[in-house]
Amino acid sequence: MTKESAGPLRLLRETHEERVLAALRAQGALTRAQLADQANLSRATLSSIVQDLLAKQAITETTANGEAVRGRGRPVSVLTLNAAGGLALGMDLGHRRIQVTVANVAHEVVASEGIACSERTPWGRRLDLALALVDELTARQEISLSALAGVGVGVVGPVSETGDHPHPSRVSRTALVRDGLAERFGVPVYVDNNTRLAALAEAIWGAGAGVQDVLYLRLSYGVGGGLVLGGHLFSGAGGAAGELGHISVDRSGPRCACGGRGCLERYVSLAAVLEQSGVRRFDEFLRRLDAGDETARRVIDDAGTRIGEVLAAACNTVNPDTVVIGGELADAGDQLLRPLRAALRQYTHSQVRRHLRIAPAVLGHDDAARGGIALVLRRSALLAGYPATAPGPSPEDQAHDIG
Amino acid sequence: MTKESAGPLRLLRETHEERVLAALRAQGALTRAQLADQANLSRATLSSIVQDLLAKQAITETTANGEAVRGRGRPVSVLTLNAAGGLALGMDLGHRRIQVTVANVAHEVVASEGIACSERTPWGRRLDLALALVDELTARQEISLSALAGVGVGVVGPVSETGDHPHPSRVSRTALVRDGLAERFGVPVYVDNNTRLAALAEAIWGAGAGVQDVLYLRLSYGVGGGLVLGGHLFSGAGGAAGELGHISVDRSGPRCACGGRGCLERYVSLAAVLEQSGVRRFDEFLRRLDAGDETARRVIDDAGTRIGEVLAAACNTVNPDTVVIGGELADAGDQLLRPLRAALRQYTHSQVRRHLRIAPAVLGHDDAARGGIALVLRRSALLAGYPATAPGPSPEDQAHDIG
Repeated sequence: MTKESAGPLRLLRETHEERVLAALRAQGALTRAQLADQANLSRATLSSIVQDLLAKQAITETTANGEAVRGRGRPVSVLTLNAAGGLALGMDLGHRRIQVTVANVAHEVVASEGIACSERTPWGRRLDLALALVDELTARQEISLSALAGVGVGVVGPVSETGDHPHPSRVSRTALVRDGLAERFGVPVYVDNNTRLAALAEAIWGAGAGVQDVLYLRLSYGVGGGLVLGGHLFSGAGGAAGELGHISVDRSGPRCACGGRGCLERYVSLAAVLEQSGVRRFDEFLRRLDAGDETARRVIDDAGTRIGEVLAAACNTVNPDTVVIGGELADAGDQLLRPLRAALRQYTHSQVRRHLRIAPAVLGHDDAARGGIALVLRRSALLAGYPATAPGPSPEDQAHDIG
Repeated sequence: MTKESAGPLRLLRETHEERVLAALRAQGALTRAQLADQANLSRATLSSIVQDLLAKQAITETTANGEAVRGRGRPVSVLTLNAAGGLALGMDLGHRRIQVTVANVAHEVVASEGIACSERTPWGRRLDLALALVDELTARQEISLSALAGVGVGVVGPVSETGDHPHPSRVSRTALVRDGLAERFGVPVYVDNNTRLAALAEAIWGAGAGVQDVLYLRLSYGVGGGLVLGGHLFSGAGGAAGELGHISVDRSGPRCACGGRGCLERYVSLAAVLEQSGVRRFDEFLRRLDAGDETARRVIDDAGTRIGEVLAAACNTVNPDTVVIGGELADAGDQLLRPLRAALRQYTHSQVRRHLRIAPAVLGHDDAARGGIALVLRRSALLAGYPATAPGPSPEDQAHDIG
């Protein structure tokens, strides 16, 4: 069974549509005959896809001299991507960084910019900074947002399936961001946790591209993760699926703010790693590690083992194709991955191990913003590449319906 | 957002169709006006559903004196379930028991029968026993299998997404069962692991009914499980999702046949529990437990704690609505569930814990056979209750596409 016949859960990149768009992206303009050839599709299949894409304004059809094609008896025409067919805006309002990224109908990033911010920056201020960044970026690159189809935005902390923060006292964060963006742009706004959005982006365009089920782990100041199943973010009942940082590695360990005990995050967050190695800055830690410092090696070895043990439990539960490891700690490379893989090998079921691939994350600072773009691309009827679905919300709307 | 608008992943029981069928099941025969009222649907919605159900031969329409209704200008007619509209056969070829269950188009069990068998019974012999049981059952209850839509069958051990056993040397088991049943009945045959099928049945008709994401754990001679997400069995890359029995509870524990170390199964299988308590038979163990025997209490307490610790890791990964606990060990009731819940509370993220329900399994020996029936009901165009899907395989076909 090929992935292309997998029904309503086909990934963006796996649709016939996406093959057509990819050909146009690569070649600029093509006749229908050329396009059928390039996309390796029958004329009949191509014809129905082209009709859909024209209806969605994702592509345009012109004669060789640039006139729009209408009606019957038409001359040979060429198809091109419609640059004005729609844009998606992705944002990441992170702990220490604000990122804004714009993608076009061809799923290409057309502009991206990030700025650092303090962890203590209030949410209203973060939003203002992000909006100013959008203004600056679109002005500088002469991008019109008149064809904006939607905004996908990542925030820190859990976001439940309704888009609200599960702690009533903190609802204001999600609501503030969503309402502020909706008011400013007048388009649909989708909010999710930024680590989860990074997971989605890695699964679609990054280290997990081409597989179905991806478990993503981010090793940073906090330790979080996300679960992408069948190409869609999976949230679970409380929006906390993939929160691997709060799996216990020491059952008699210290209490964690999450309510658990001995959580992985307490042992392998950047702060914990720095504390254990007596180093102030993470770049200094990496330098020592490279220089063969004994303490640094022991610390990263312990961290890798603990992470591998937690991943083994998670993989035995979900049996993913690929585990993607992101965040700053992943910069330790093989010195982290070696003990991590060893622990995974030791504690996974052979069925799970046999199908498992461990891959470092490949996207950069714009990972979560691109995840936001994926949410928009998936939902917008104007933007091509999202397979047609039955009426009703798409899977990320109904967050625990994995659709 | 109501569950009814959740798109193509609506559970069987949540469709409007299912409401119509439920009303007919309860009331026998109803006019369209009565049916719209009973099912609480608008006349327009009801009309399109009735049309579909008539087309699928799931229901029939007759005048008060029993004539089939055709064409326009028709008199007031009544709708009834079509008893000949299709049957689904479920089978469980278990370690120690063979079960055969037949359900009709209304998702009602019309016949069910099980027999014990030895663990050493060869697979060909098991199949023969199951087929003899089908013959006996259908003869005794005068059931015609001429309208059989499909067979769903559970087998022991892992079954990959293609329906084959992942160990090439054991492929024969799945192939033997599938080919034997296809030859005998001439209908589609769906094979999966029987614990996973029990998970599906519990999620649809049992302790997980009405929720989206169910983690099922079976505590028996072996310790296995299944993951039902959005109402569909989730398999993962190697068909091993939900194999909680092989999550490590003691990292320096003994090697397990699965390739792991210190697996839960080694500590809480029935055999392990009996060995730890120095008792020969499980009913004797339960008797001692009830009588307040110290050793038995300590053993079940340790087992509950270990199971809770493993479930905590699994729940932090998947964030299910409900964990269903099945298998013989669940007969220990609160003596098992009390320490299990305590460990779960202690080691889960607050977001996960807040939305989590622990429930004992409620289906009996026919759980896996009913899961097989669910596979058939979901796939057969003749049988009502399965929401229409896009062309292409249904989620359980493409086992790691959770559809």
